[in-house]
Amino acid sequence: MSKLILFQGDSITDCGRGRDGDVYLGCGYPRLVQSSLGFDCPGEYEFINRGISGNRIVDVYARIKADIINLKPDYLSLYIGVNDVWHELGSKNGVATPKFEKIYSMLLEEVMEACPETKIFLIAPFAIKGGGTYNAEDTSYYEAFIKDLNEKIGAVKRVGEKFGLPVIELQPAFDNALKLAPDSYWTADGVHPTAMGHELIKRLWLETFEKIK
Amino acid sequence: MSKLILFQGDSITDCGRGRDGDVYLGCGYPRLVQSSLGFDCPGEYEFINRGISGNRIVDVYARIKADIINLKPDYLSLYIGVNDVWHELGSKNGVATPKFEKIYSMLLEEVMEACPETKIFLIAPFAIKGGGTYNAEDTSYYEAFIKDLNEKIGAVKRVGEKFGLPVIELQPAFDNALKLAPDSYWTADGVHPTAMGHELIKRLWLETFEKIK
Repeated sequence: MSKLILFQGDSITDCGRGRDGDVYLGCGYPRLVQSSLGFDCPGEYEFINRGISGNRIVDVYARIKADIINLKPDYLSLYIGVNDVWHELGSKNGVATPKFEKIYSMLLEEVMEACPETKIFLIAPFAIKGGGTYNAEDTSYYEAFIKDLNEKIGAVKRVGEKFGLPVIELQPAFDNALKLAPDSYWTADGVHPTAMGHELIKRLWLETFEKIK
Repeated sequence: MSKLILFQGDSITDCGRGRDGDVYLGCGYPRLVQSSLGFDCPGEYEFINRGISGNRIVDVYARIKADIINLKPDYLSLYIGVNDVWHELGSKNGVATPKFEKIYSMLLEEVMEACPETKIFLIAPFAIKGGGTYNAEDTSYYEAFIKDLNEKIGAVKRVGEKFGLPVIELQPAFDNALKLAPDSYWTADGVHPTAMGHELIKRLWLETFEKIK
């Protein structure tokens, strides 16, 4: 019996995944994981991506039954947080960090209660300079973005520690990647990864998966 | 100065690539190559996918200037042949093997003449049992498909030998994969690879690339 890996998150996870059934995982790190792990371990895993573009922690929380618990995944990969920052700056519709941390904890508690066998790991959000985060004429936007984002990263790490779950930290990995090639090589806009950026996430994902599987 | 890798072919290469510019390489082996090679060698390569669904050798030949020669690629990966078989069986619009081999040779001669520095490698087509190739109630369709496909594979190998170019042979690799998981794990229909099937192509592609780069 193959084991089910569920990817949950926002647009970085969604990446144009199919909406009619769970066949096509989109063009992001979930499909890269599926390609690589699926090739190396034929038939051992099934992969479902239920990420939705624009989602904040409260949106994932709203979908907890249909898109997490009812699927009874063997593994849950949760990557959320950048829209909780971005939507505040863009349209005053974000989620402040204390609430982010609270809802994130509630979500995990409920999943762990309903699916005690599910192995969960968390991916903390990242951002680098790019068209969606940085404006040379008004650097205060970028500063506010990074400040709030760092708070979100801290919250995900605290939540991971609280529940004893591994947390993949993308920010240092992308900061390091910037030493090798410019921002546009790794993301389209400071937030959405290119093919190479998704590969970076995939490789960290697989490293973490090897440890907990 | 980064080197340009051009992917050319049919739907297996196309895989929904972007049509407005060359940013998105689709969800197939070209993007998997871009992700992996682009991550491992930051800034060393650029990647363009000009595969078009439904193409036969004559269609690629018709596009030789706009979609190959004018781009002056450092590397050309050419994966064509299955529609030359399929379209004959489906709508009497295929390409018979002698003509396939002739036009394939003409294409390579013209590319090598116009772009003598371009390193070229060929990918021979494959097919396994699936919804697009096999009908349990009329196995003669599958038999005719495989017979003609094998002729195409032979033609690509002869052309590769004639011009001293490496040929990636997918058929033995997919035949071998079938020992590990059923056909639907590797292709959607006998022809179009799943994420895992594209990973198989990507890995053979990278092995060959390492030898000729």
